[in-house]
Order: sequence, then structure tokens, then C-alpha cells
Amino acid sequence: MRILVVNPNTTASMTETIEAAAQFVAAPATEIIAKTSKMGPVSIEGYYDEVFAVPGLLMEIAEGQTAGAQAAIIACFDDTGLDAARAMASIPVLGICEAAVATAALVAQRFSVVTTLERSITPVKGLVYRYGMADRATVRAANIPVLSLDDPTSDAVLKLRTEIEKALAEDGAEAIVLGCAGMADLARDLQAEYGVPVIDGVSAAVKLAESLICLGLTTSKRGAYATPLSKPYQGLMASFAPKAFM
Amino acid sequence: MRILVVNPNTTASMTETIEAAAQFVAAPATEIIAKTSKMGPVSIEGYYDEVFAVPGLLMEIAEGQTAGAQAAIIACFDDTGLDAARAMASIPVLGICEAAVATAALVAQRFSVVTTLERSITPVKGLVYRYGMADRATVRAANIPVLSLDDPTSDAVLKLRTEIEKALAEDGAEAIVLGCAGMADLARDLQAEYGVPVIDGVSAAVKLAESLICLGLTTSKRGAYATPLSKPYQGLMASFAPKAFM
Amino acid sequence: MRILVVNPNTTASMTETIEAAAQFVAAPATEIIAKTSKMGPVSIEGYYDEVFAVPGLLMEIAEGQTAGAQAAIIACFDDTGLDAARAMASIPVLGICEAAVATAALVAQRFSVVTTLERSITPVKGLVYRYGMADRATVRAANIPVLSLDDPTSDAVLKLRTEIEKALAEDGAEAIVLGCAGMADLARDLQAEYGVPVIDGVSAAVKLAESLICLGLTTSKRGAYATPLSKPYQGLMASFAPKAFM
Amino acid sequence: MRILVVNPNTTASMTETIEAAAQFVAAPATEIIAKTSKMGPVSIEGYYDEVFAVPGLLMEIAEGQTAGAQAAIIACFDDTGLDAARAMASIPVLGICEAAVATAALVAQRFSVVTTLERSITPVKGLVYRYGMADRATVRAANIPVLSLDDPTSDAVLKLRTEIEKALAEDGAEAIVLGCAGMADLARDLQAEYGVPVIDGVSAAVKLAESLICLGLTTSKRGAYATPLSKPYQGLMASFAPKAFM
Amino acid sequence: MRILVVNPNTTASMTETIEAAAQFVAAPATEIIAKTSKMGPVSIEGYYDEVFAVPGLLMEIAEGQTAGAQAAIIACFDDTGLDAARAMASIPVLGICEAAVATAALVAQRFSVVTTLERSITPVKGLVYRYGMADRATVRAANIPVLSLDDPTSDAVLKLRTEIEKALAEDGAEAIVLGCAGMADLARDLQAEYGVPVIDGVSAAVKLAESLICLGLTTSKRGAYATPLSKPYQGLMASFAPKAFM
Amino acid sequence: MRILVVNPNTTASMTETIEAAAQFVAAPATEIIAKTSKMGPVSIEGYYDEVFAVPGLLMEIAEGQTAGAQAAIIACFDDTGLDAARAMASIPVLGICEAAVATAALVAQRFSVVTTLERSITPVKGLVYRYGMADRATVRAANIPVLSLDDPTSDAVLKLRTEIEKALAEDGAEAIVLGCAGMADLARDLQAEYGVPVIDGVSAAVKLAESLICLGLTTSKRGAYATPLSKPYQGLMASFAPKAFM
Repeated sequence: MRILVVNPNTTASMTETIEAAAQFVAAPATEIIAKTSKMGPVSIEGYYDEVFAVPGLLMEIAEGQTAGAQAAIIACFDDTGLDAARAMASIPVLGICEAAVATAALVAQRFSVVTTLERSITPVKGLVYRYGMADRATVRAANIPVLSLDDPTSDAVLKLRTEIEKALAEDGAEAIVLGCAGMADLARDLQAEYGVPVIDGVSAAVKLAESLICLGLTTSKRGAYATPLSKPYQGLMASFAPKAFM
Repeated sequence: MRILVVNPNTTASMTETIEAAAQFVAAPATEIIAKTSKMGPVSIEGYYDEVFAVPGLLMEIAEGQTAGAQAAIIACFDDTGLDAARAMASIPVLGICEAAVATAALVAQRFSVVTTLERSITPVKGLVYRYGMADRATVRAANIPVLSLDDPTSDAVLKLRTEIEKALAEDGAEAIVLGCAGMADLARDLQAEYGVPVIDGVSAAVKLAESLICLGLTTSKRGAYATPLSKPYQGLMASFAPKAFM
Repeated sequence: MRILVVNPNTTASMTETIEAAAQFVAAPATEIIAKTSKMGPVSIEGYYDEVFAVPGLLMEIAEGQTAGAQAAIIACFDDTGLDAARAMASIPVLGICEAAVATAALVAQRFSVVTTLERSITPVKGLVYRYGMADRATVRAANIPVLSLDDPTSDAVLKLRTEIEKALAEDGAEAIVLGCAGMADLARDLQAEYGVPVIDGVSAAVKLAESLICLGLTTSKRGAYATPLSKPYQGLMASFAPKAFM
Repeated sequence: MRILVVNPNTTASMTETIEAAAQFVAAPATEIIAKTSKMGPVSIEGYYDEVFAVPGLLMEIAEGQTAGAQAAIIACFDDTGLDAARAMASIPVLGICEAAVATAALVAQRFSVVTTLERSITPVKGLVYRYGMADRATVRAANIPVLSLDDPTSDAVLKLRTEIEKALAEDGAEAIVLGCAGMADLARDLQAEYGVPVIDGVSAAVKLAESLICLGLTTSKRGAYATPLSKPYQGLMASFAPKAFM
Repeated sequence: MRILVVNPNTTASMTETIEAAAQFVAAPATEIIAKTSKMGPVSIEGYYDEVFAVPGLLMEIAEGQTAGAQAAIIACFDDTGLDAARAMASIPVLGICEAAVATAALVAQRFSVVTTLERSITPVKGLVYRYGMADRATVRAANIPVLSLDDPTSDAVLKLRTEIEKALAEDGAEAIVLGCAGMADLARDLQAEYGVPVIDGVSAAVKLAESLICLGLTTSKRGAYATPLSKPYQGLMASFAPKAFM
Repeated sequence: MRILVVNPNTTASMTETIEAAAQFVAAPATEIIAKTSKMGPVSIEGYYDEVFAVPGLLMEIAEGQTAGAQAAIIACFDDTGLDAARAMASIPVLGICEAAVATAALVAQRFSVVTTLERSITPVKGLVYRYGMADRATVRAANIPVLSLDDPTSDAVLKLRTEIEKALAEDGAEAIVLGCAGMADLARDLQAEYGVPVIDGVSAAVKLAESLICLGLTTSKRGAYATPLSKPYQGLMASFAPKAFM
């Protein structure tokens, strides 16, 4: 099985963290192809950054599909561009927030998501709500910039642990979901430390991607995710016109 | 008052329809500035088209704000890019779906939205849900391509009327919301014909924009819509980096 | 445009506050006609007072419509009598709670409503829920009697500010809705002080009323708001029988 | 036990139907005191009629409480004035819609309410929603004026039976709730005919009233139903000022 | 009337507490038949205990029905086995959680349930949600083992009172629901002490059972509660095969 | 990896169908251990059968865990006993309904579940609701007894196909979930026939079980699924007392 994991921000060192997490859980027969987006923001922090991360992300997925990937993972906890990717691609596509909360729901009745910045709480709550977990999940921010997770001199992990401790003490959390792809390397240690399931979305998505491939399932093209209609795109966006990809 | 109305697709004839509808309801002291996006799809039909409409849309809003617009309207019923625009701009921003359903809710307990294509039902339902109207609104599609609304030889209006009649007969609809910016010119005639409120989102958004300006209200920058953080954007998207606009 | 604003309690000094707020935001061409109810409680604090405020309120709306008003506003945050008024009148009718939360939703993802007394929390929550904002709004009481807002020697505003500060600190509020018509004069100062949108329902309702008039929209008479059937009313209520008004 | 049953419309023949239904199920030791409101509409059909039924209703409840009633029942399926009555009275108060749906929920997972007129569907749905049964109940109208139920020459019962049959065939209804006090005499026959539980709210409310009396429970005066504050009421409503009752 | 009250755990002293509470509120003509399950756990604390309490509970209900009981009450706040009992029996069956929250909803807008152990919060929340009270009720645990309620030397009541005080101070609770059958004897004293309605589910269920009997209502056999199909059961469970009971 | 799949009914031929479906999708390194419950009903059709299937199911899971299984699957679409199993076991446990809807949600916005009998619609809806898919899924019954799926001479598959066709035509379904373990062998053919994703819960659960094992995740023992407290169980249930298993 060949699974494409796209980091939709342009920071290659973060892709390395993501790739390592993906490799760690991949089945022996699975090939992980990790890609860094070639265009867009260096980190995705809020609605604005999301917009400009999507074209580069979709380009990677389109190329990956052509190159034989059998499933694609969007390694940003905002599940940036997930709907568009599902409409575009014929292979299944997974977001890491979706994967993480779907997995957490299998091992806990109630869990807390700890994300990076305050401004991400509303978008992540929106996702949690959409994935049907509004009554089961609390969303918190540790107030750490995304790229600080890549910086060993920052206090990012310390702040993350403080927030996890609050979640356990105040939210009735039975499990913790790590709310950023940049935290993918921390799940195992934190799980050992706190004695509750700690879920990383990248790892979770890899396993779900393998599952969908094995089950022979891909996005339904009936209804919401119908293949984009062929039509002209103007100006800077011309090269993304549907006919170019399909 | 100066209100910017952006057609986020690149079809200028559709902008004309939108501009006329906006002008028709604007207050005497209001200047309507209608803009067609310079990049992206010729029509927005589904999740994929949405992605590539947003950069051009945001560029128009940023330019409009610089040029003195006091509010901006996104004239696409998917409310494409609304969250990003609210985060980016310091002026208030309105989506026409949001404006239409907020207005319909003032004159009816229960209403039906009639949009264009089947594939738009899920995105529009998502919006209706988010705007708190899940229990009050039904979403239907008339199966008409967006650009057929601009074509006097098509049977688009006939199909739209058939679907409105079904909504009145089957949904308990007390009012009708027209689910596409390209229908902006039809509201008054349909209201006269069917004897129930028929709401066009472009017109509704113009009045809400005037209201917000007059009330001195703009998007809160606390929380979800905090100003985008300054950071580099790579490749084709470099020119959209937050510092470029703010 | 002629807009009727009815204070459904019988305290004329409060009507003055309401009228001033309405005038302040009305368009140049709008005539604000402010009326104090001639019968009922001197202030509306809880479900019981509401009941006896409605007949006087409806009488003012019926008279106002006859006298040429094109829209009516119910200037009490409980939206007292709103459904009955919509059924009775052929002009559009707005409640100030509905207007305030509909407006707040355009500038914030999450907001807090600060009302007067503890006993009003449940009725206001009921409205917020009905208007589709259950997931986006918190309701708080500042524990101030309605009429104390009219008394410059009271500590009402101090208590209101304390509660606003709690809302910002504890609720994740991005905006504040003032939950009483008697607070209509405070919105601008509080907005300047706290740097977040502060929404007064009277002002918001005036702009929405102008909008509906301009859009040619009024309450649908299909379904929930069908015109009251002509029938006898007995005793003290005889003069309110539907045929008397319509 | 002494239980007051108030018909909040002024039609005495309907009170007789209600009283008979109440008597039929009352415990041997229970005294049913049935009262017809002395003021307001001859039937309650929609939001407008409701308003003018409440003062007469509250007057009966206040008088009944003074005369020793230990619980009060509002015998109109709109649960007209229920919140105000709960705030006013120190004895427990029950609405027949609330009683009927609470009882239906004990014998069926899913039920349909069949009410009189189309215009009552939205108010009744609002109640069903508030009582927590949004996911379990369907609301239908048989298109019969309230007073036709009292007229043996009308086809009201025929229409009601047709609608019950539709509910059983189309809604997955496991039980039927009769959605008008004027149908109180029909429950037993319809239950025998259709072989599913058929619930009349008047009967259900009598048993719940007996239960609350026996359990020593009455409306909490903490929060939403705090005793009305003493204050002047003006004009026609002066005699209803809180101090007059309490 | 003959009402069966089954304690689904096997601790006879707890059955005595339950029986006393049931007797205290039963109508003069009601015969309370209290039974202790003959098989299963000595107390029900969490999902696992529930499973093994149900066969013994159903056996008691089946025997009780045969012996002439007209209604059955399951005296465990988890409403253990309620759905199966409703499907099995032709007499109405009530759970004490369902009875308590249905009754609380008649005297308060908002209430708190205080149960025993932390592990019971999620199951009880699940019930509260299912009974339509998700928006009106808070669930708390006093951290007291079920059987400690039977032990006069324990500090169980002290802990319960502490939790009730928190509910009143922090939850906006207008009433308290006691979340364990073993608390049935405490309701009256706590109500007197705290001045708000305190509801015990055993008492509430007795009154609702009398009501259903008097109203001639029993579980609908259409849909969810259709009579179990006759079929073989294997091994240790063979004696419970549907044909054995019906 | 060693995965236990328990058929909680006692029909061995149905276990064969389940085992074959599990084997078909299991990874090369996965050992599927399929077990038929030794006690309880021959098929699970409604709430009553569920109760008596759980003890035998839990016994198999306890034995399987002792024998080295790393995850357990409950192969009945009612997810019978899932909560108790999660509390009892230290290995992760999956229900096939939960697995199927979690998987369907990854490939479709909206899907329909087709189950066996009418009486199962409410229990399955309850599960779909609990798993957060209330707004995305429709539940239908094909009116086929569970064991008829094992009988090649029955018209069960024909009826199932008819119901799938209705789901596609009437529900806006983008995918189909097969609502019975006995349909596990039909998914691939139906998917090929109808051109939409068709999800079988047994297969889906096997892949999720492999995923959880690989991710090192198991049920949180904090909160709802805390390990059962050691205590005596009486009578026929004595051998199931918690200490016996743990």
C-alpha cells in the first residue's frame, strides 16, 4: 500500500516529524510518501492561512494520486481542504482531526483536544461538532505557536503538558487528542506519563487510510463529493481548473 | 456609505445581475462598488471550485478596504471564504447565505432554500446548520447549472419555479430563500407570484451591511477572527502573505 | 420610512432612552415613532409581567399600523408578544433580543448576553436557543432591577461592567449583547471601553426594520403567523377580538 | 385532593368535555373543580388568541389557589400561560401538552401529536421541542376548528381518524397524542380502535397533578419561576398587579 | 392497584429502603410488592454490573406480571434493563431515573442529578440525554459507594449534602434529583433543608405507575417494544427464552 | 496480531459468515479467532434478545483476552454489551455498528443503514445518534429475520436490495451501511452493483481493531469504563462476579 501524507504548510522540518510518526505505525507493506506543500504559509494558524495552504495541498494530492498513491492524508489538524480534496481525488482522503476524534471515540466516552493557539479553538470546535462529537469533546489551546513545537529550546511541550493536566482535572477527559500535526512525536510519551490514551492524528490517519484501502472503500461520488465539473479557471488559478487534474 | 460587493466567480455578466440587485435596495447615500474576481473559476459549483475562488475574492476585499469600502459582501451562496475574509479585514464582511437566512428568519418560522445543483445541498445545509437554522429550513436543488441562470434561453427559471412549488407543497415552507447569487434579479417577481416572502441574499446582505456600518459594528478581533499573524508564504501564494494586506 | 418602537412597559422615562437610541441610528429618511404602552407593568421582569404587557403592546402596534407605520419594534429583551404581534400585523415586527443576537452573529462567533435579573436568564436562554444560537451564546445576569438602569444614582452600570468583564474572561466571548432595552444608551461607551463589539437590541432592530421595509418583506401569513381568525372575545378582553383590529 | 382544571377559552360546553375526562380518571379522593375562563377568546387557535386567554386563566388559578386547590391544570394544548402561572402560583401547575408528551414518552419511543389547525403546528412543535421530544415526536394537523370538536354534526372526528391513520402509516408512530383539550373524550375509543396507546392531555395532567400533590412537590421558586416582584400595573391591567394575587 | 417494585441488586436491606419510600407515597388502594432480585450483583455500579442484574430483574417482572401486578418499577437509577422489560411485559414498566427527571421537569426549568460514583456520570448523562433533558440537567457524583448509603456509620449523606450545595451554587439548579435508589429515604428531609424540590425516583415512579394504570396505558407493542419473537436460547440462558415468559 | 471476533448469538453458521468476512480483510500478520457464544439466543432481534446474549459474549471476551487476544469485536449490529465489555476488558473492544458508521463517515457525508427488522430501527437509531451521526444517517429495515440471511432459499437478499434502492432514491444516501453481521458477505457485490460505498461492520471493525493495536491504544479506564469493582454476584450470575475475570 502506498499512502501519501501531505504537510500542507511549507515547513520541511515539520514534515519530517509527521513522516516519522507515520512510518512508526505504518504496516510493513505500507509505503509512506511524505510531501511538503510547495506553496502557501509556513504554518497554518487560523482561517486565513488555511485558504492559501489548500492549492498547494491539492496539487500534492493530485500528483500523488497520479504517481500511484492509494490514499491521501492531510496532516494539518484544521483538516484544511478536506472537502475539496475528497471531491477532486478518486482515492480516499483523510484529515488528521477527523482521524483523531474518530479514533478517540473508540477508546473513551469523553476526551479533550489540546490545540495550539486560542484562534484555532473555534475552527477545531467546528470540526469536532461536524464529526458528531460536540457532546463528548472539549477543545483547549495551549497558546503555543505551531512552529515552536519544532524548536527544542521553546517551552511548547511544557505548556502542552500543563494544558493536558487541566483537561484531566477539569473536563472529565478520559483521553487526550493532540491538536496539531507538529505534536505527532509526543503521543507515546504523554500516554505513558498520564496513563490515559493520547491520540495523534497523523498516526490515526495512517491506520484509517490503510483500512480504507484494504476495505476497497473510497469517497462516494454521489452527492456532496461529486467530481468537479470541467470549467475554465481564470488568472493565477488557471492551472488548477478541474480538467487539468481529472 | 461605500459597500463593496464581490462576485467571487470570474463571470462579469453575473456581476451585473448582482450589482443591479444591490443597487436596487441600497440607500440613497450608499455607493455600491461591484467587483468581479480576477482569478478563479467562472462559476462556483461545489467544494473544489470554492477553494480557487477565495484568493481572488480576498484580494478584491483587501483592495476594496484600502480604497475606502466600509463593508464587504461575498456574493456567492456558499459564503465562500467568509471566515478568512472576516479574519483578514477590519471592515465587516457578509456572506449572502448568512444574510438571506438571517433575514428569512425574521419573517417566517420555517423556510426552504432552493439552490442550483445537487452537489451544493450538503455545503448549503452545512451553512444553514451553522447559522442555527437546522430545525427551520429545508434545502433543495433545482438542478440548474449556475451560469444557466444568466442564459435567457435556458429553462433555469422554469425549473426553479417547479422546485419552489414543491417547497410550498411539501416542506411547510412559509418563505423561500433563493440559493444562488445569480437568482438575485428574480426575488420580487417570484414573491409577487407566490404570495410568500422570497429572499435574495445579495439584497439582504446590502441592507445588513448598511446596518453594521451605521451601528459602528465590525468583526470582533478577539478569538476566532484574530488578525492573521505575519509570516512568509511560499511559491505562487507568496503575494498573499498576511503582512502584504494588513 | 416610518418605524414604530413600542416600549411594552409603562415607564415613559425608559421610552425616552429607547427613543434616543433608535433616533441615533435611524436613517435620515426614517421617522421613529416611540410609544409607551398604556397598560401593564412598569417594568417587565419575568414570565408573569410579560403576560400583562402584551395586550397594551399589541394595541400600540395595531394603532401604529393604522397610522401608517411600516414596521414595528418591541423594545423589551424578552421579545414579549412577538409571535402574537407577527400574527396580528401585516407590517413586519421585530423583537430586540432577536435583532441583537442576529446582529451579534454577524460580527462574532461566540458572544455573551448580559441581562438584568437572575429570573430572566431562563427566558432569554429560551430565546437564544430558538434563534439558533444555543452553541454560540452564554447568558448572564448582572442582578440589576430594570428600572435601576434609569436611575443615575444606582450602581447598575457598575454591576453591568463587572458582568461584562466576567463574560470576556470566562466565556470566551468575542462580543457582548446588552440584554435589556434600558441599556440602549450604553452600547457605544462600553464598546469603546472594552474593544469588542457591544450590541444594543433597539439600535439593531431599527436597522433591521429599515432593511425589511426596503426589501419589501413582511411576515409570511402562511403557517405559524396566519392572520387571527375572527371570533368573539369575552369580558375584559372583548375589545381585543381579532375583527376589531384587522 | 382538590385539583383545579381551567379551560382557558370561554366556551362552557368545552369545559364540560374537559371536566368529564378529568373526573373519569381522578382518584376517588380527588375533587375536580373545572372552571371556564371569564374573559378572552371562545377558542384558542394560534398565537394571538393565546395572549388574550392568559389573564382570565391566571385569574382562575389565583382564585382557585385561594379557594384551596392544591394543583392547577391548564386545559389547552398550547400550554398557554404555563410559565406565568408557575411563577404566580405556589401550587404546582400543569399544561396538558406537557402532561401528554411526558406520559406518551413512558409507553412509546416514537409518537405523533395530532392537533387541530395548520397554524398550531409550529407552536405545538415548539412545545414538543422544549419538552425534549424533538427526536421522538411528529406533529400533524387534522384541519378541524377547535369548536367543531364540540359539534356532533361536524366531520371533525372523521378527519381526526384519517390523520391518525396517516401517522401510523407514515411516521412510525407507536402511540398517538391528541392535540386539543376538546378531544379529551375520544382517547379511549380511539385506543381501542387502533390498538396503540392514545393519550389525552387532560387525563394525563390530572394524574400528574395528583402525583405532585402526593409527592409534596411544587414549582421551584429558585430561578426561572421566582415569585413575581410587587410593582404597579397600569390601565386595564392594573388589577392583575402581582401584589393583588400573592 | 398492584405495583411491583424490583430492586435489581440482591441487597435486601436496600429493598427495604425502597419499599418504605414506595409505601409512603402509594395511594390507599395501591398494594406495593417489593422484590429483591435473586441473582446478580449486590450493588449496581457501572456498565458491567448492569448486565448481570438484568436477567434476575426480568425474572421478577415476569413473575410479578403473572401474579397480577399491573405495573412494574425498576428501582435502580441506571434504568437497567428498562427497554428489555418493556418489550417483554404487557404491563407498563418504569425506570426511576426516567420517572425522576420527568417529574423534576414539571417543577423546575433546570435541575441537577446527584448520583453515587464518578463512573456512573456517563451512563446517567446518557439517560438524561435520551429523556430529552440534555439542556436542562447537570449530572454530578458524590463519590459514595451505593451500599454506603445503607450504612449509618458512613459519611455518605454528608458527601451527598456537600454535592447538593455545589449544585445549587454552581449549576443554577432549581431542583435536585437524587441519583440512586438507595437515597429514596432522604428526599423529604433534604427538600425541607434546602428549600427546593428534591425528587426521589422511587416515589416518582410509584405515582407515574398508578397514573398509567388508571389511564389504561401500557407500552406500545408497535415498533421498538414489539413482543420478543419466540426462539431457542442456549446454555445457561435457556430458561429465559421468550416463549417461557409470554 | 490476534483479534477475537465474537458472534454473540449461538448460531455457528452465522459465525462462519462473520469469520470469512473478517479473514478476507485481515492483514497477513493478523490471526482472526472467531467464536460463537455458548449461551443465549440463536439470533438477536430486539432489546430482549440483547440482554441474554451479553453474558455469553462477555465470557468469550474474557476467555479470549486470557488466551492472548489483543482486541475484541462484537459481531452484532446492535453493539450488544459494548459498554460492559469495554469496562471489563483491558484490550480494546469494537462494536460493528460503531465501526461501520465511523468508516462510512470517512467516505460519505450522508449514508443509510439498512437493518433487518422494524423492531431494530429504534435501537440502531439510538446507536447512530450516540455515535454522532444523527444528522447524516437514515435507518431503514428490510423486514428480513436475521437467520433468513443464512438461508440461500429465502428472499432476504432480494428484499435487502429493494431497500438499498429506496435508500439511494429517497434518502440522498451517498453510501450504504449493512445493518446486520449476517450481511457481511454481501458488501463487495452490492458495492459493485450500486456504485457507491457499501460498508460491512465486521470488516470495518477488523481494520479498526488492527489500527488500535498498532497505535497502542486501549479503552481508557478513567471515568465511564473504569474497571468493575470487585463484589459478590448472587445465584445464577455468581460466576460472572468481577473478581472472576480480572
